[in-house]
Amino acid sequence: MNFKSRNIVSIWDFTKDEVEFILDSAEEMVPIARGEETNTALSGKILATLFYEPSTRTRFSFESAMKRLGGSTVGFADPSGTSFKKGETLADTIKMVDAYSDVIVLRHPQEGSARLAAEFSSKPVINAGDGAGQHPTQTLLDLFTIRQAKGKIEGNKIVFVGDLKYGRTVHSLAYALSMFGPELNFVAPETLQMPKEVVEHVTACDTKVCSGNKLEDFINDADVVYVTRIQKERFPDEAEYQKVAHIYQIKNTLLQNVKDDLIIMHPLPRVDEIAPEVDKTPHARYFEQAFNGIPVRMALLKLVLGVS
Amino acid sequence: MNFKSRNIVSIWDFTKDEVEFILDSAEEMVPIARGEETNTALSGKILATLFYEPSTRTRFSFESAMKRLGGSTVGFADPSGTSFKKGETLADTIKMVDAYSDVIVLRHPQEGSARLAAEFSSKPVINAGDGAGQHPTQTLLDLFTIRQAKGKIEGNKIVFVGDLKYGRTVHSLAYALSMFGPELNFVAPETLQMPKEVVEHVTACDTKVCSGNKLEDFINDADVVYVTRIQKERFPDEAEYQKVAHIYQIKNTLLQNVKDDLIIMHPLPRVDEIAPEVDKTPHARYFEQAFNGIPVRMALLKLVLGVS
Amino acid sequence: MNFKSRNIVSIWDFTKDEVEFILDSAEEMVPIARGEETNTALSGKILATLFYEPSTRTRFSFESAMKRLGGSTVGFADPSGTSFKKGETLADTIKMVDAYSDVIVLRHPQEGSARLAAEFSSKPVINAGDGAGQHPTQTLLDLFTIRQAKGKIEGNKIVFVGDLKYGRTVHSLAYALSMFGPELNFVAPETLQMPKEVVEHVTACDTKVCSGNKLEDFINDADVVYVTRIQKERFPDEAEYQKVAHIYQIKNTLLQNVKDDLIIMHPLPRVDEIAPEVDKTPHARYFEQAFNGIPVRMALLKLVLGVS
Repeated sequence: MNFKSRNIVSIWDFTKDEVEFILDSAEEMVPIARGEETNTALSGKILATLFYEPSTRTRFSFESAMKRLGGSTVGFADPSGTSFKKGETLADTIKMVDAYSDVIVLRHPQEGSARLAAEFSSKPVINAGDGAGQHPTQTLLDLFTIRQAKGKIEGNKIVFVGDLKYGRTVHSLAYALSMFGPELNFVAPETLQMPKEVVEHVTACDTKVCSGNKLEDFINDADVVYVTRIQKERFPDEAEYQKVAHIYQIKNTLLQNVKDDLIIMHPLPRVDEIAPEVDKTPHARYFEQAFNGIPVRMALLKLVLGVS
Repeated sequence: MNFKSRNIVSIWDFTKDEVEFILDSAEEMVPIARGEETNTALSGKILATLFYEPSTRTRFSFESAMKRLGGSTVGFADPSGTSFKKGETLADTIKMVDAYSDVIVLRHPQEGSARLAAEFSSKPVINAGDGAGQHPTQTLLDLFTIRQAKGKIEGNKIVFVGDLKYGRTVHSLAYALSMFGPELNFVAPETLQMPKEVVEHVTACDTKVCSGNKLEDFINDADVVYVTRIQKERFPDEAEYQKVAHIYQIKNTLLQNVKDDLIIMHPLPRVDEIAPEVDKTPHARYFEQAFNGIPVRMALLKLVLGVS
Repeated sequence: MNFKSRNIVSIWDFTKDEVEFILDSAEEMVPIARGEETNTALSGKILATLFYEPSTRTRFSFESAMKRLGGSTVGFADPSGTSFKKGETLADTIKMVDAYSDVIVLRHPQEGSARLAAEFSSKPVINAGDGAGQHPTQTLLDLFTIRQAKGKIEGNKIVFVGDLKYGRTVHSLAYALSMFGPELNFVAPETLQMPKEVVEHVTACDTKVCSGNKLEDFINDADVVYVTRIQKERFPDEAEYQKVAHIYQIKNTLLQNVKDDLIIMHPLPRVDEIAPEVDKTPHARYFEQAFNGIPVRMALLKLVLGVS
């Protein structure tokens, strides 16, 4: 399977076999990601990190991934300290950066930016989130976390809870999971339920789907609970927000009858969706999930640079 | 020729032989700059990049140059995230940075800053632009681009077009070119023509000079067209600006009768001085010109650090 | 003596023997810090530099220290370009960064932050200043500078002058010096004198202490003068500030009868506490003191990472 020079724009661009190949490659990266083994496979290579909006977690993990493999980075963490206000188009900036690096990571507030960048770049472009669009490396690290904890993705009962309407992360993950055929449960207030097109797509892929608005109805059968934040900004008024704000907070009392091997995931940062007391339970996987960004991104960097 | 510990403050500090030696050295750097060869000549060395005003292109290319040679960087991209507001003088900052690095790149809004920094530093200082002053590495990469495309700098007919009055880039380049004796044509509206002292200097160097305000009168004989932006801020009122704003836009229709091997250059970023349709013509050299910043800066870093 | 995985939160956490061991280790780092020798002891290791307030000098010297030893860094120079405004707790941020690095340097405006971070991190945390709290690597480099200049710390007469009331730096250094038993002189206006608890502590350690408000009464017997800035913000009104603002400026006229081997130190940046003319005297040690941040931090990084 050859990924050399491929762009990583959308999780849609990958077949199930390709996803599994990436996850297998990521598995091999774990000891290097943990700093237990050193590796210089990407020595001399330069990663450009263009963050048109800040995303500290994503930026740090791409930079760590590159540096754990002996590579270097150039870039910016947010556009305020750049000279881009002079009015250069994204296409021109990409053609410039293309000359200064071997691979480009782009975070941009506008949907479609990563696809555009990929068209103008001769070097591979990795989408690190483009507005309401895709964030494929987040989806891959989510899949990696489930597979690592459960041995396989197939056959799990996965509960998504929180804001399922606006969350880019849960849409992409639901799409990707539908390749593997687990059971998906969507738990959200009526106004924040999973969009119809996502439900239709995953159902068409033979994925069993149940929806509801009470987490208690689903959590005790779950293998995975994927929690997302309900954001105040989504609500027209404070009163509407307050009705749903804290209804799904994960606390130890809620976990009394769950499966022993239930895992709780969250893309982070969390605010109060998961109480800190949960961190010490064996169910908490969100910090390990954050770590998994490193081996997954290491694998992708090596693959698109054609370094084995 | 020994450049060890020399400061790169002004293009004036170099003889013609020295300029050619730098361009020859840059030529050797091209495969490393492209990432086709790896090199660790500057391993263990640290470049300090002090950008008192943002200049993303220049910063990226210095950092890439350093990292392609195995070196490291410390620095800041703009002064807002620094603690310099505490009132430290530039001299004190330089003496501090001097202790933390092997070579210093300085971008500063005030003319003369680089010369001052060079006086207080025991390590070589490279001027990456000081206000209305010099930006010698830009001049060197411009010369490199012309020589690379044409085989030599001598004997070419070079047209400068746009804002020739305020553009630091074109003044320095005109001065430098006068060492090599090409023919120079200055095309600009009356109010934005090349300053008298530049014209007098290059004429005194036996450089043939013609001036005019219609690009059509010059472009069909040209070997090189060097385009610069006309900036709105230079005009007392909007109406004056609108008269000249778009008169020199390079489009394909303008290129119908030009020489086959005409090259079009631009220091970038462009706004609308060159239409995107021109990018696909064989005349477009501005992205290659941007790339050339890397081998030129690699050569300079190696030379001033005394690493062969 | 084993420092592997230890946090460097406060100078209080170290015995006199441990301090001397660190200074001995720093001594060995000097040729590498100067760039005269190359070393790759920390190759493959990643330092996270989390600066919740800018401190350019401290950040640069940690980054240089890491890179001189072949290591890499990820981090931010101030929190404005991060996504931390989303409301993540420091504990959660630390657990994330913990997964992406081998050692963490934290600068934070709130006292106690470094201790908190150390509790939540599995990797060693180095405090680079937490508000009115500690800045132990500054204290260590101050001790290193005195020992280097004088051969030993014991037996010296050390004058602190300036704002002794609010200066974190002088409190920590006075505490640390009391382990070594020099004589301490505190010179400040009445309203900015050394806090009673510091004086009581160092006296209890058999350190001889004298206080006064005229530098002239102390400087001619001094072996070391440690100067700090008097900050306008500390005063309720301008008139009060003006009374003491410039009373302790170090000028050459003040140095006419000092010991030949008197050294003058300052944590930098200075404003006008030391006239530039003093820089050229053999007494000036403040730039060397700034340089000493590198070998001291190199030694600490190696020690806490368990790399010999």
